[in-house]
Amino acid sequence: MAVYTHVSAEMMARFLNDYDTGELISFKGIAEGVENSNFLVETRGGADGHRFILTLYEKRVDPADLPFFMALLDHLAMRGCRVPRAIADRTGVQIKQLAGRRACLIEFLEGISLSTPNPAQATAAGEALAEMHIAVADFDGSRPNSMGLASWHDLASRCAGQWQKIDPALEQLVSGELAYLQAQWPTDLPQSVIHADLFPDNVLMLGDTVSGLIDFYFSCTDARAYDLAVTHSAWCFSSDGASFDPGLSAALLRGYRDRLVLTPDEQAALPVLARGAALRFTLSRAYDWINTPADAMVTRKDPMAFARRALFYADPANAGLFA
Amino acid sequence: MAVYTHVSAEMMARFLNDYDTGELISFKGIAEGVENSNFLVETRGGADGHRFILTLYEKRVDPADLPFFMALLDHLAMRGCRVPRAIADRTGVQIKQLAGRRACLIEFLEGISLSTPNPAQATAAGEALAEMHIAVADFDGSRPNSMGLASWHDLASRCAGQWQKIDPALEQLVSGELAYLQAQWPTDLPQSVIHADLFPDNVLMLGDTVSGLIDFYFSCTDARAYDLAVTHSAWCFSSDGASFDPGLSAALLRGYRDRLVLTPDEQAALPVLARGAALRFTLSRAYDWINTPADAMVTRKDPMAFARRALFYADPANAGLFA
Repeated sequence: MAVYTHVSAEMMARFLNDYDTGELISFKGIAEGVENSNFLVETRGGADGHRFILTLYEKRVDPADLPFFMALLDHLAMRGCRVPRAIADRTGVQIKQLAGRRACLIEFLEGISLSTPNPAQATAAGEALAEMHIAVADFDGSRPNSMGLASWHDLASRCAGQWQKIDPALEQLVSGELAYLQAQWPTDLPQSVIHADLFPDNVLMLGDTVSGLIDFYFSCTDARAYDLAVTHSAWCFSSDGASFDPGLSAALLRGYRDRLVLTPDEQAALPVLARGAALRFTLSRAYDWINTPADAMVTRKDPMAFARRALFYADPANAGLFA
Repeated sequence: MAVYTHVSAEMMARFLNDYDTGELISFKGIAEGVENSNFLVETRGGADGHRFILTLYEKRVDPADLPFFMALLDHLAMRGCRVPRAIADRTGVQIKQLAGRRACLIEFLEGISLSTPNPAQATAAGEALAEMHIAVADFDGSRPNSMGLASWHDLASRCAGQWQKIDPALEQLVSGELAYLQAQWPTDLPQSVIHADLFPDNVLMLGDTVSGLIDFYFSCTDARAYDLAVTHSAWCFSSDGASFDPGLSAALLRGYRDRLVLTPDEQAALPVLARGAALRFTLSRAYDWINTPADAMVTRKDPMAFARRALFYADPANAGLFA
């Protein structure tokens, strides 16, 4: 968690001259996410709000994808979903340039990201995810899932020979799961734009109410039920993946299903989708682990936390989980 | 710039239960300073304000010094200086414990830290520094300057043999300046509690007005005029130290002198005090440079930026600078 790009208060004040946001009165770099540089911005006297997040897009976000993300957020907000919209400058432009990077000034939303959500909060997150899936039904943007099944093979081959830096059991787990998923991955499920990364980090809450879904930078077109599987893998385990919480699981699934009925095919596919979700985060974390110096200030996330989830989902004893 | 200690929103919400600050509605780690972990905290419904900085004190701040710092801020605020006070909990306690560290909930002040202040802003900073010196006249706390002359010898000896990692010219510059300062350092100047680190970073401004002096964690008892010299070295040069700005210098000195008349001894001592200030930051930065991995996410500050200031102040051609 860090700010990668330096922006001075003077640069920020000049940047704001393009907007109807008034005078800059506070500006702090915030340690949020590992992908981008973010700043909390406060202004006074403007017509277009007074608190914002400025995001500078670092190398992991493809600038060509930004119009899709911004159009998606505008669409969701227009349909009543609580998501942060990009503010347009006086000429209507949302995607700007600052300090050599693409930059967007984004609505600030109240709410806190939980580390250990309770069942009521899991239900609220499930509802919010389903509402997002309903709201995108008439959104006409699309983006391939750059973190889908094909990318898992690629990530695995880029980790080849280095699994023992993490855990000697990982190589066999990954190759076994990849083979299974390659054979079993469903391809005819209902698709839509999905969030694809709805960890508790990315859900702002006030009490048991969702006040915002954030960080749509993995959003893409893929199976709707895969989004639910990703969310399940992110919400229903202890952070080290060693312990599954059936209460959170039931609460999350209930919230989603209360808003959006799963088709029989979706229902049947959930176990394999969940194995895929667990493998996806195992692999992206493994790749980052191998390629991040141990003494870097960025906290490396433990790939084994998701390898344990993959093992859990693959265990026939847990087959009834999504019933 | 980083957050060193992880605090979850749940931990923060529990921590706030001790205070009359209402319900937590936002919580962000902020990338500020290199010494401590800081979080921007927002609440609603409380009697004791709604926006705060939570500071967790990491290893560089001695917990035994915290009561001095907090008493100083209370005193300054009571005397009308714009400084952030620590909020007391319901039992009157300001210095608490969180995540294994001393923790203080501190007033949030509006204002931005400038990178390239203008003369009007330098004058305002000079005035604010003098007002602080006036306001502490009846403050009875004291703290030795742990970054004073004696510590410079110590830092230099801990860098011995490693100067060439930074610049081959540094060894001779440091030993020459140390010998000069050891012989010439004034010991009978008016003392008070001083800020000792009043870089533009530590002065919040709204337009040309000071809205807050912050980061008092080097404050100590020392020569008042040394504080002015530190501030001069921090404000009146380009950040790489290569270019001196006479307009900023005149503006800063005018602001200070408008509020507080320097004694003839102080006036005469300013050139040597400024050489000391420049050496102090050269040495602390050199020590950090040598002891920080080049690939760490913490930005290392260039020691040569202050070595150049030391050379500037030592040059007889600049003797009339403080006249």
